Amino acid sequence: MNNFVFYSPTEFVFGKDTETQVGAMARKYGARKVMIVYGGGSVVRSGLLDRVKASLQEAGIAFCELGGVQPNPIDLKVYEGIELCRKEEADLLLAVGGGSTIDTAKAIACGALYEGDFWDFFIGKAVIEKALKVAVVLTIPAAGSEGSGNSVITKTETLQKLGMGSNKLRPLFSILNPQLTCTLPPYQTASGVADMMAHIMERYFTNTREVEISDRLCEGVLKAIIEEAPKVIKDPNDYEARANIMWSGMVAHNGTCGVGREEDWSSHALEHEISAIYNVTHGAGLAVVFPAWLTWMATHNVDKLVQYAVRVWDVPVPIGKLLSDEEKVDVATEGIRRLKAFFTSLGLPVSFAELHIEHPDIPRMIESLRRNKGNLLGCYVKLTMEDCADIYRLAL
Amino acid sequence: MNNFVFYSPTEFVFGKDTETQVGAMARKYGARKVMIVYGGGSVVRSGLLDRVKASLQEAGIAFCELGGVQPNPIDLKVYEGIELCRKEEADLLLAVGGGSTIDTAKAIACGALYEGDFWDFFIGKAVIEKALKVAVVLTIPAAGSEGSGNSVITKTETLQKLGMGSNKLRPLFSILNPQLTCTLPPYQTASGVADMMAHIMERYFTNTREVEISDRLCEGVLKAIIEEAPKVIKDPNDYEARANIMWSGMVAHNGTCGVGREEDWSSHALEHEISAIYNVTHGAGLAVVFPAWLTWMATHNVDKLVQYAVRVWDVPVPIGKLLSDEEKVDVATEGIRRLKAFFTSLGLPVSFAELHIEHPDIPRMIESLRRNKGNLLGCYVKLTMEDCADIYRLAL
Repeated sequence: MNNFVFYSPTEFVFGKDTETQVGAMARKYGARKVMIVYGGGSVVRSGLLDRVKASLQEAGIAFCELGGVQPNPIDLKVYEGIELCRKEEADLLLAVGGGSTIDTAKAIACGALYEGDFWDFFIGKAVIEKALKVAVVLTIPAAGSEGSGNSVITKTETLQKLGMGSNKLRPLFSILNPQLTCTLPPYQTASGVADMMAHIMERYFTNTREVEISDRLCEGVLKAIIEEAPKVIKDPNDYEARANIMWSGMVAHNGTCGVGREEDWSSHALEHEISAIYNVTHGAGLAVVFPAWLTWMATHNVDKLVQYAVRVWDVPVPIGKLLSDEEKVDVATEGIRRLKAFFTSLGLPVSFAELHIEHPDIPRMIESLRRNKGNLLGCYVKLTMEDCADIYRLAL
Repeated sequence: MNNFVFYSPTEFVFGKDTETQVGAMARKYGARKVMIVYGGGSVVRSGLLDRVKASLQEAGIAFCELGGVQPNPIDLKVYEGIELCRKEEADLLLAVGGGSTIDTAKAIACGALYEGDFWDFFIGKAVIEKALKVAVVLTIPAAGSEGSGNSVITKTETLQKLGMGSNKLRPLFSILNPQLTCTLPPYQTASGVADMMAHIMERYFTNTREVEISDRLCEGVLKAIIEEAPKVIKDPNDYEARANIMWSGMVAHNGTCGVGREEDWSSHALEHEISAIYNVTHGAGLAVVFPAWLTWMATHNVDKLVQYAVRVWDVPVPIGKLLSDEEKVDVATEGIRRLKAFFTSLGLPVSFAELHIEHPDIPRMIESLRRNKGNLLGCYVKLTMEDCADIYRLAL
């Protein structure tokens, strides 16, 4: 196990009707003026935005608004938000929405207190030294941004989709009401599930040895998701299953599952190139990329895949028998087959074709990947750009 | 799943040689004067106390000292600490030790800012409104106090051993170096393991339904402990196994495993009567009480015990077959047998006799229990005092 720091200071308020506590929470954390950041559509139509405003008013907290955040959020909205935030002198950014909204609020939170271009933080040109407070009312369980210090933004001009993280961006508080997720369409629900599973698996597949406690935590969260997700697809109003999925999405990404180990975020990087160019839903892109990544790994670094297949997918193996290399690949392959079958059962695509991208421009994605990440990707196995192209081809 | 708040703001610094960071961390959190709280013996002999002082000095932070905390910590040391803390105007209590030391530091932290008797917080006569900062250098993985807001203290005069909790007592930071635990005697190591397993199981056995995510987290941590603990007993210097156990002890008690569910802390209450009167090691007492509590439950509320036996102890059940009530009790009983065999394999007692208490004074423990907890205990099944006496008798 590697040395690590675990720090997840966010106060999570979870359960029915909890969005009515947002005003009291903002006051508790000393907010003077809130900027509400949201997308549009459902947050407005459902009346959630009005309930949030009413709660702030009741708590005597002034607010301004920034609507119109898009999925795969872009830099232009961040610039707009930074300007508004400075003008309004807001000191707490309240994201009401999913990952795109939260990530936009985080980028504004650090950009507003920085003299240069906020994009500097995403390209490693600057380190965040201070940020405004961030808080969340979550409506889509997927990105885990409600419990993380991460943000992913796309630069419109170049279509670069990049992520960065800082403990200074961890939300002060996050309000998670599973009721708010009952109106999510099945495809978005399923994409969220794929996203949170990827967050766990990108921590799980590691070369760091002797990490039984975090392995077991990863496997436990995956098991819970595998049990609960089909219930949510079957009955969108199943509150209990929604609650389990919503909390799993937080645990998947606040660091709980990744302590003490090297993590490999190749799949996210490979997917970002797809969604940046083709604007697909991030989770759906992951459902396509992750099995392909695993398939490539089965013949390059198989042992952890065997453990994954056995413990997570209950692939049977003879007890007490040492597996040959060939048998290991078989077990791993059966695990991957079960993962794909699971995604398919949720209505997710598992290939470019099912994403309706018949002829993905692999050279263009690889070129962009090289520009964003350099010549080698990941660590479970270090991937050359040719390896990455192979993985894209495995997903055709 | 019940509504809940999850709040674990402690910054955990984990790994080799991390105690050298204590000065820098205290400075980062704005400490002006530290009061070091410790037991004695090994913390001094091993040179740890000197290293902690050197780190504080290097960071330019003044400190005073309160040594001599005993296992099953008592109120008298708390009063002494409160007096010293006020006199020295310390603003951060740094516990260097295990649960007893940390719990003493927490009681001082809230007592020093309170005009009345700190014991008021333990008997529910007052609620903590403010507390001094608390931080930890952990030497014994067991109590989980490094990540919790809880404290357990014994009142010398009456031998009342009571616990209480407040988010205001959660440590600002906790330093966990598994190397420091390599010198722990096997019995203390094993007792710590029993304590952390109890912390999980007291959350696990609940009547709250549809808590798959926290069930799976509980089961995962138990599985990791069951895998790693024998390695530590076999080779006390196995750093990796020590690291897994140390982090498991934190996860077991910072709230991760208990979200959204009713918890049942009967076993801890039953044990506190034993250790208050007979001064046994808390974890060893739990190894005696918990199997007895489970045995009683097997014939009163069996379903969750079946899940426990199957998922945690791999007790085989016929797939797809509905179990009769009798078969459920059989499966549960086999699970309990495996738990006891596990404790025994670690060198722990599983009966009063093995604790060298041949004739426990059950009426006296019951009378004390009634005074401390009232006429009914717990919630998985509400226990009358007669039920509690039966459980003690099951442990003879």
